[in-house]
Amino acid sequence: MSHLLNDLFLRACKRQHVERTPVWMMRQAGRYLPEYRAVRSKTDFLTMVRTPEMAAEVTIQPVDLIGVDAAIIFSDILVIPEAMGMDLVMEESRGPRFPQPLRSSEQIDAVPVADPEKDLRYVLNAISLTRRLMGGRVPLIGFAGSPWTLASYMIEGSGTRNFGVIKTMMLDEPDALLRLLEKLSVSVRLFLEAQLAAGADAVQIFDTWGGILSPDHFKKFSLDFLADIVARMRRDGAPVIVFSKGAQGTLRDIATIGADVVGVDWMVDLAEARELVQDRVALQGNLDPAFLYANPDSIRREVHSILRKYGKGPGHIFNLGHGILPDVPPDHARAMVKAVKELSPAMHGTAPL
Amino acid sequence: MSHLLNDLFLRACKRQHVERTPVWMMRQAGRYLPEYRAVRSKTDFLTMVRTPEMAAEVTIQPVDLIGVDAAIIFSDILVIPEAMGMDLVMEESRGPRFPQPLRSSEQIDAVPVADPEKDLRYVLNAISLTRRLMGGRVPLIGFAGSPWTLASYMIEGSGTRNFGVIKTMMLDEPDALLRLLEKLSVSVRLFLEAQLAAGADAVQIFDTWGGILSPDHFKKFSLDFLADIVARMRRDGAPVIVFSKGAQGTLRDIATIGADVVGVDWMVDLAEARELVQDRVALQGNLDPAFLYANPDSIRREVHSILRKYGKGPGHIFNLGHGILPDVPPDHARAMVKAVKELSPAMHGTAPL
Repeated sequence: MSHLLNDLFLRACKRQHVERTPVWMMRQAGRYLPEYRAVRSKTDFLTMVRTPEMAAEVTIQPVDLIGVDAAIIFSDILVIPEAMGMDLVMEESRGPRFPQPLRSSEQIDAVPVADPEKDLRYVLNAISLTRRLMGGRVPLIGFAGSPWTLASYMIEGSGTRNFGVIKTMMLDEPDALLRLLEKLSVSVRLFLEAQLAAGADAVQIFDTWGGILSPDHFKKFSLDFLADIVARMRRDGAPVIVFSKGAQGTLRDIATIGADVVGVDWMVDLAEARELVQDRVALQGNLDPAFLYANPDSIRREVHSILRKYGKGPGHIFNLGHGILPDVPPDHARAMVKAVKELSPAMHGTAPL
Repeated sequence: MSHLLNDLFLRACKRQHVERTPVWMMRQAGRYLPEYRAVRSKTDFLTMVRTPEMAAEVTIQPVDLIGVDAAIIFSDILVIPEAMGMDLVMEESRGPRFPQPLRSSEQIDAVPVADPEKDLRYVLNAISLTRRLMGGRVPLIGFAGSPWTLASYMIEGSGTRNFGVIKTMMLDEPDALLRLLEKLSVSVRLFLEAQLAAGADAVQIFDTWGGILSPDHFKKFSLDFLADIVARMRRDGAPVIVFSKGAQGTLRDIATIGADVVGVDWMVDLAEARELVQDRVALQGNLDPAFLYANPDSIRREVHSILRKYGKGPGHIFNLGHGILPDVPPDHARAMVKAVKELSPAMHGTAPL
């Protein structure tokens, strides 16, 4: 960690003492920033993802503009299915789509495991470039989607309210689905390892759709694969964060798979969660992203409430409970970050900085 | 209860012995039934709601066609805001809308409490007619939306992903929101009392959007009002069911407000939930509605799994974890009901019926 000028985030991941609670925001390199929209206006989303100079530029923007304590590489969870040979279409109005979703056991068996060194080289290059350009100001986070979440997109083909196709496969052809999840697990693990090798300081797995499953189905079709990834990953001490949205009912299980940090959404009571995970892991979260629409005084009050919920001592990384919304005023994001920086030293026995 | 030929549902609500677990489905009078679509094809949704003969006809359909153990009056949670003077627009393609949503403290203060005897007379008439037509075959459930859920529609004006408007009001102008929730509590309570007086055997409160709040905000802006309604309602022993979707983190609190039954979605582990509520309440749920897309053998297996999760003894009402989806094959709903009827006697020390 010696290359870093600010390693608060990494120390908090390891539940070591920090002078104040570190803060970053999921989807912080995003549309709420006019500076992001300026880059985006010149090209399309996937070209930004695939062009290391552009990806690095928008990755660093929130470090400069909002003052966050970690950067997360600008990319998308769907780069893995694409690297597995699926045609990915991104349309602003409709959201991402796979026009040829996987609907049969045969289609699933024809899909190869991803080769990140070859097919996701552009992400690895973006990471190396970002790290060089940041000059150690803050840590850089790499990421991937969870096997269950990626399988949902690959099988449904597009956004869905009810996940009827994948849930039908889950009940009627569980073995086919499990074979796909196996391939995704290997792909995700290799990709995360490659991101660490390219210069990422930590990695996060986004299990965006884990919360649409019953606890038993979640364990069998999502958590077991997350556990497998974390157990096998070569990471040389680099922190792993697991974020399962909507997983308040299975938090205790998630905390046992060997991740350093568990991300929690705003439906989780942080005090109860801390009690539940018994300091086995650090917790990351969990301001309701919609609260950034409120005025800065209200935002400050809610930040304070969350800091107190977690309570004193190490192991809290402040974040939103989900990605920042695209129409939030940047000043409101800054108000949140400022509040964390001003109010959190008291949680660590430190005078306000 | 003496007017009923089948009172399994009412006995289960009171955690009394039953020979088998009763079963019904939220939104069971709905579009998945060709017989419903035949009625609907002749008119629009709101006319069906407002015409007692039509409402009674589709209310009784699932009793005849699917074999459920309770009927729920065909209506909509948004009849209360309409009775409070708001213009309600229902468009199949866009979902329900209030073209003039409540956006200011002044607008909120101008809204009257609903007068169900006058402005919701059509629902009460539909209940009386349905009860007469059913001839005591199964109990009839009345219902209303929760204050929080109704306020969400009245303030947002239409379906919303992020609930940004009401959450901003919650933080920036909590007193205005609380005044609206007060008026809604009175309106909901009066409406539920009127439905019982008109012949409903039980009532359910649908807190569809309770689960988008943090536990602390849920308690202050939703649960406190549910508790107030239940505490003050004159109901002469008629069961009250409270269903807060997405409330796995606050189940213990919901179980303490005096309702007879707590509805749970499929993210709740029924065994854990039963342990948590300590037999203070009956539990209603909780098959994933998307599982009705799967084949009947899979459905039967999942039904069995849920019956075993709840375990032996009284206090379980089988239901979906949310409303039945509009494109489910009716045969699959029948397979679910059949499985409950065949597999549940073993949970009550009864031979298969």
